[in-house]
Amino acid sequence: MADPLVDLAERLQARCVARGLTVATAESCTGGLVAHLLTEVPGSSAYLRGGIVAYADAVKQAQLGVAPGMLEAHGAVSAQVAIAMAEGVCERLGTSLGVAVTGVAGPDGGSPAKPVGLVYVAVAGAGMPPEVRRFLWTDERSGNKRRSAEAAITMLLERALHEGAG
Amino acid sequence: MADPLVDLAERLQARCVARGLTVATAESCTGGLVAHLLTEVPGSSAYLRGGIVAYADAVKQAQLGVAPGMLEAHGAVSAQVAIAMAEGVCERLGTSLGVAVTGVAGPDGGSPAKPVGLVYVAVAGAGMPPEVRRFLWTDERSGNKRRSAEAAITMLLERALHEGAG
Repeated sequence: MADPLVDLAERLQARCVARGLTVATAESCTGGLVAHLLTEVPGSSAYLRGGIVAYADAVKQAQLGVAPGMLEAHGAVSAQVAIAMAEGVCERLGTSLGVAVTGVAGPDGGSPAKPVGLVYVAVAGAGMPPEVRRFLWTDERSGNKRRSAEAAITMLLERALHEGAG
Repeated sequence: MADPLVDLAERLQARCVARGLTVATAESCTGGLVAHLLTEVPGSSAYLRGGIVAYADAVKQAQLGVAPGMLEAHGAVSAQVAIAMAEGVCERLGTSLGVAVTGVAGPDGGSPAKPVGLVYVAVAGAGMPPEVRRFLWTDERSGNKRRSAEAAITMLLERALHEGAG
């Protein structure tokens, strides 16, 4: 029961509720796992407004406003698209904070340039410039999803802790 | 590892890929768990286009097209809203099939009329009228989410099996 990722989600929730911050998620390779973990915590509706699972590129465009040209130029698994997804979900869902995950969970879909396990996680909002981090996980599909979700919740928590701390 | 709900997702995927059906999810109380389970299966991008986690009512309206009057008249946890969410996500994401879950996962948020554990699951698309089922789970939050997700994947699978079977 004591899932450390749900503990992390609890810390995020406590901070967001205390600061009046709202959150939205934009997930490609994690496929909804981030939102699932956040909603394991009772009372999560106090700060989590929702999320978009943008598996297909057309959903990234239509639901998150990612420009087709950006997808063509950099590919869906890129720092640029991760940032655009995080910014897009903040704007579309009207939240203070947004997080986005895009990557190659595996076992298929990898290439020399973008191997299985390559994941970008971006956070946006709270009056700070967006931030993106690149990861290269070496797990199987399910493990890569979980590690990516952990990174996403960690980056949200860091930003929420930073907000108003100055 | 052998999660029976992922096995169920595998069966859904095999059927949808064989029939050329695409799927989208609209989740309130399951918070992304349905999409997470579907994307645990390698190759799920072949049929799953994405989903909307519509936790806040404003997200149900803006991202799924649920009418404000319907939310006022019936409440977010209702058969009507479940159907509107399923139809909305099919339309917004352009898929053959859509599934929606709305309910009270608990431990808070229940009322005499809509107790903790009350969940509506609806499926739409594939040229059939929408269908909705009402459940009353007696688990805690996490268990109620899982049972609702199982019902959602089961109803998708039933519809996918029915499609083109006649």
